[in-house]
Amino acid sequence: MSGNTFGKLFTVTSFGESHGLALGCIIDGCPPGLELTEADLQKDLDRRKPGTSRHTTQRREADEVRILSGVFEGKTTGTPIGLLIENTDQRSKDYSKIAQQFRPAHADYTYMHKYGVRDYRGGGRSSARETAMRVAAGAVARKYLEQRLGIRIRGYLSQLGPIKAESFDWDEVHQNPFFCPDAGKVAEMEAYMDALRKEGNSIGARINVVADGVPPGLGEPIFDRLDADLAHALMSINAVKGVEIGAGFESVTQKGTEHRDELTPEGFLSNHAGGVLGGISSGQPIVASIALKPTSSLRLPGQSIDVDGNPVEVITTGRHDPCVGIRATPIAEAMMAIVLMDHYLRHRGQNGDVEVTTPNIGQR
Amino acid sequence: MSGNTFGKLFTVTSFGESHGLALGCIIDGCPPGLELTEADLQKDLDRRKPGTSRHTTQRREADEVRILSGVFEGKTTGTPIGLLIENTDQRSKDYSKIAQQFRPAHADYTYMHKYGVRDYRGGGRSSARETAMRVAAGAVARKYLEQRLGIRIRGYLSQLGPIKAESFDWDEVHQNPFFCPDAGKVAEMEAYMDALRKEGNSIGARINVVADGVPPGLGEPIFDRLDADLAHALMSINAVKGVEIGAGFESVTQKGTEHRDELTPEGFLSNHAGGVLGGISSGQPIVASIALKPTSSLRLPGQSIDVDGNPVEVITTGRHDPCVGIRATPIAEAMMAIVLMDHYLRHRGQNGDVEVTTPNIGQR
Amino acid sequence: MSGNTFGKLFTVTSFGESHGLALGCIIDGCPPGLELTEADLQKDLDRRKPGTSRHTTQRREADEVRILSGVFEGKTTGTPIGLLIENTDQRSKDYSKIAQQFRPAHADYTYMHKYGVRDYRGGGRSSARETAMRVAAGAVARKYLEQRLGIRIRGYLSQLGPIKAESFDWDEVHQNPFFCPDAGKVAEMEAYMDALRKEGNSIGARINVVADGVPPGLGEPIFDRLDADLAHALMSINAVKGVEIGAGFESVTQKGTEHRDELTPEGFLSNHAGGVLGGISSGQPIVASIALKPTSSLRLPGQSIDVDGNPVEVITTGRHDPCVGIRATPIAEAMMAIVLMDHYLRHRGQNGDVEVTTPNIGQR
Amino acid sequence: MSGNTFGKLFTVTSFGESHGLALGCIIDGCPPGLELTEADLQKDLDRRKPGTSRHTTQRREADEVRILSGVFEGKTTGTPIGLLIENTDQRSKDYSKIAQQFRPAHADYTYMHKYGVRDYRGGGRSSARETAMRVAAGAVARKYLEQRLGIRIRGYLSQLGPIKAESFDWDEVHQNPFFCPDAGKVAEMEAYMDALRKEGNSIGARINVVADGVPPGLGEPIFDRLDADLAHALMSINAVKGVEIGAGFESVTQKGTEHRDELTPEGFLSNHAGGVLGGISSGQPIVASIALKPTSSLRLPGQSIDVDGNPVEVITTGRHDPCVGIRATPIAEAMMAIVLMDHYLRHRGQNGDVEVTTPNIGQR
Repeated sequence: MSGNTFGKLFTVTSFGESHGLALGCIIDGCPPGLELTEADLQKDLDRRKPGTSRHTTQRREADEVRILSGVFEGKTTGTPIGLLIENTDQRSKDYSKIAQQFRPAHADYTYMHKYGVRDYRGGGRSSARETAMRVAAGAVARKYLEQRLGIRIRGYLSQLGPIKAESFDWDEVHQNPFFCPDAGKVAEMEAYMDALRKEGNSIGARINVVADGVPPGLGEPIFDRLDADLAHALMSINAVKGVEIGAGFESVTQKGTEHRDELTPEGFLSNHAGGVLGGISSGQPIVASIALKPTSSLRLPGQSIDVDGNPVEVITTGRHDPCVGIRATPIAEAMMAIVLMDHYLRHRGQNGDVEVTTPNIGQR
Repeated sequence: MSGNTFGKLFTVTSFGESHGLALGCIIDGCPPGLELTEADLQKDLDRRKPGTSRHTTQRREADEVRILSGVFEGKTTGTPIGLLIENTDQRSKDYSKIAQQFRPAHADYTYMHKYGVRDYRGGGRSSARETAMRVAAGAVARKYLEQRLGIRIRGYLSQLGPIKAESFDWDEVHQNPFFCPDAGKVAEMEAYMDALRKEGNSIGARINVVADGVPPGLGEPIFDRLDADLAHALMSINAVKGVEIGAGFESVTQKGTEHRDELTPEGFLSNHAGGVLGGISSGQPIVASIALKPTSSLRLPGQSIDVDGNPVEVITTGRHDPCVGIRATPIAEAMMAIVLMDHYLRHRGQNGDVEVTTPNIGQR
Repeated sequence: MSGNTFGKLFTVTSFGESHGLALGCIIDGCPPGLELTEADLQKDLDRRKPGTSRHTTQRREADEVRILSGVFEGKTTGTPIGLLIENTDQRSKDYSKIAQQFRPAHADYTYMHKYGVRDYRGGGRSSARETAMRVAAGAVARKYLEQRLGIRIRGYLSQLGPIKAESFDWDEVHQNPFFCPDAGKVAEMEAYMDALRKEGNSIGARINVVADGVPPGLGEPIFDRLDADLAHALMSINAVKGVEIGAGFESVTQKGTEHRDELTPEGFLSNHAGGVLGGISSGQPIVASIALKPTSSLRLPGQSIDVDGNPVEVITTGRHDPCVGIRATPIAEAMMAIVLMDHYLRHRGQNGDVEVTTPNIGQR
Repeated sequence: MSGNTFGKLFTVTSFGESHGLALGCIIDGCPPGLELTEADLQKDLDRRKPGTSRHTTQRREADEVRILSGVFEGKTTGTPIGLLIENTDQRSKDYSKIAQQFRPAHADYTYMHKYGVRDYRGGGRSSARETAMRVAAGAVARKYLEQRLGIRIRGYLSQLGPIKAESFDWDEVHQNPFFCPDAGKVAEMEAYMDALRKEGNSIGARINVVADGVPPGLGEPIFDRLDADLAHALMSINAVKGVEIGAGFESVTQKGTEHRDELTPEGFLSNHAGGVLGGISSGQPIVASIALKPTSSLRLPGQSIDVDGNPVEVITTGRHDPCVGIRATPIAEAMMAIVLMDHYLRHRGQNGDVEVTTPNIGQR
């Protein structure tokens, strides 16, 4: 299967370039009978949309999604759902420079080596613009999981460069432009971002995603473990350089007595596993954390080469996110939703339905 | 596709339980004409084999692999390669206790919830015993990649619990039982492990894997990026809780000017990307790092429940690795080999062959 | 993988209902560098288009296809190609009857049983309207195969109900509305169809498709043999009830000495195999033949039941093809093109490129 | 996915050459809890086994299958089921001639062109010997379908060369060596076969397979229709050149009023559809028919070329089936069982379980 399809039973196949005519995707395998309107998708798209604060790119992208098929009289029919977002902000621009240069830490160099040609306008297919379709598709999965199984998927920014969220309040996450759960850190983050923009530089971030209410039993060992598919899904998001499940890299220094989540009739006593044991969900919350690199579109000049191999100095102008991590929270949520949805259907195929009434034991 | 197949063109499909009759796998899609004997596979299997030092489990597993098909007159024929390892160390044992209990942090609980039955002997399918077949299959990929493309894949243990390797020498890696590249830390690791065994506890570890000589162009965005498939492959290894590519979680605190790998006519000036840009190999070394949790098979008692939900105290007797990370190096190498092999064939399918002569620019 | 994707390396994923907003598909895995414009696709779409003669439905379907992505500066870039046809002939209509009845021999009954809901407007997803996207996608494959390998794929109607083509002239195929290679039978076919329309009945047909210039070596035994994938592709076309390769059902009464295609240094002496031996192309023309059933949309009343299980008499009004086989030729060609393209890329992935210069031995 | 795996959720991956060490397969995705022993598989293997009458090859193939994994305490566990048949009849033989020649109508020529090498002993991978694993895997599917859904899959030989079965009695099928349902034709078939053997020639055959009790709703349009997957599965069997569903090629001359299966509250009035409407099962029996070509292993000399392109005369000695169709009945049943099983799980994944209590309306 080619690389633009994700999932086995609930599949998302995507197309579209940053500055092309449109972005789109096809969701195949969605169960019939789910009430679905464009508003369900738009809600999440709007959370990802740029320009909602001064800390993200000021590009205007309406990102208005249309459902072209697979929904009839307000409900999914089980046939493929075609989604389309037409690009409206294709301002005519001089691409002569970018066409000839490989921007450092961008995919220009590798796309050219892979395909021999590349659509250099705004990064083409390698632009994070494609994540809009992930968010739209994820919204379908999210709605089904919530209605059918009571699963809730939520993410937040746990670290912006050097600034870590230290207190935690889900309600706070949507009160600030950073998806930060620690109200006390928001001012610090704003100041940091203002300085960064002035400097012309960028910064990395860490995003956490949590799914509550996942029934035990999801995951397909030995290769398609739930955590392995999550790692695949999350690492496939632009700029992600690391994925952790549960204790993640802290496991390296943990002893067995510390790491193991002991179990009592009332539930698990901890969740170092992040809700996955042996590649299968345990009924505890699924907890993942990802590292996003700083964007490489900088006003500060960097060394590179042109398509003929000559040294050039590259400066990126235009409207860019100084911290791509800020807008990544809904994207990471969407990918987790798609993975859980796919695994729920795969599980149901082989084993019949899960015990939906299983109490969600344990705490995060 | 069900969960026991990995890869799209070079596929590995695996079967076998810890204490069943045999383990096996089928490699499909291997190019014809590769010289291959059982010795090629055994070499890597022996590196993974338990009992090579006092720091790993003292179980005897001969792990002698037989090639049952797909090789004729010493060369692969392009047809599926069947591999088989018969289990020889199935000592009869009293399983009555383990059959009734869910060992904490093991897959007992989740397999039971998923399938309603489980082969409890030695962990059944969830045992790390299955990784023998990954190593065997990986050896085929490794040999092809080395002969055809000059790719070399090597791993090492970079951290054992609190002890980090600080100096680096590839030649040292095979001189000690830990796959540790820092000769100066070996004595410390030995003492640490001795104390740990005495204590009856276990510890986590970090393994790094590096592929040199990978041509630019491998990887299938947007979902099957090279780094995403690596994350999938590595996270699918038992006990792995985190995966990093290149700078990994350090990216969170890096500024764009620091993270971006500037490029000159002589090559890249750094490799924070870990050899992957936009999901496609850049020609730099592919660098991945994984976190392995401490094994949960401990002599120290832990709380759990039995199959009826009653509280029990679990003590694991028997022969177990106090640090599963020690034997994980060849497994991680094998999974990276399989991913690179699969992506090489996928790339060749769509785009024709890579430029094998492309100089391998940049340094790790 | 869900059922709306075809292919492994060259994949076509489709969406769209008969009377929905649009039809579309995503072609993933197309090699880069192919010159491609909408005109390349429109040419084949126009051959399939209804209303080109009085013998097909008089529905107006503009079937104007737009390329939304994957092509830049006139060439494919290797990224997914999004195609879209907006539905323009959605005349508002009274669907109250069809919503309540299961038309005999239509998919109404089975879609309802499968999904519990159905888009009853014009047959929804089960309408042959979706074949427009197959033709569009096939045109991309066809162009690549022709330019890269010199493969030519052509089909014709070999039988219309009781009337068989007896002489054969490729040039004649496009001179009449039936794709009939026998000019002497055209008048008879026209008279037959005129009588059929008057009667309000429909009739079956047989279509043959031939690919010349296919290099030896394509096909992936043992399950994805070239003939098996062709059978899959052709049987997936609406109304197809039978598929033959080469001698097909005549093989039943052939003796081995008659069926076997003897081989000389100058080539094969016959082609009963239809160009496939052991599931792999032999270098001879690939020859397939399909049976299409008569459409079930008839003005003549038929017994059926309504959604509550009560008996009803069904009469289909509206504009329908009395012989769906007539318009099937370009569709069958398209499916063969997609299969050959996919297998060419799969072969190249595992084995490297084919010997393009291999002479195309043998004759049909 | 490479070509030696069949199915999406219930997958069968196969390996093994005719004269290699062993044949084997891995069944992945089998539901847990199915009682399964080797005897369940052996029963069908023995029906396919050669040497049960003078009309099939006199090769001795014990075909004793072992279950190596996935079954614990007599029940499937949901983990992959490894099956193995060791080859016992590998008599040492002089292969020097066959190694240098391409036998007409065999896969020698195409395997050589595809892979550049081939295991020429007994046809290697292209031998019908591999169908043993299909039968073994099919037996698992068959047992599950029968126990869970009451589905019964049965095949018979409907035509042996010129001799057609004219009366029909299921009980008769297992009373003669031909799987022929017409007792009155058995003597004629025996005489025909005796003459054929004396002549040194071979003959084709037609096999029909019927599945009763299939619930409505199975099949995944638009590409993975139930009939399309059946066509794929059946055409992938060695020597098959044609596949029909229901009326098959008779549809070509049928009028719509004749072909359409009218529906009443008591069920369908006919089954020209062969149990599939719009690619989805209708609840009627699934009916398929296949054409098998005459084997090309003949004592009568045929023209061919050697590996250097020189003309040679080929005579096949050794023990061969003069009508491969005779032993094909259990193989065709097995492939239908695998397809139905896979589609049942796929359906359950997307839509939840079928209504098992649905009355099986209509008759064949």
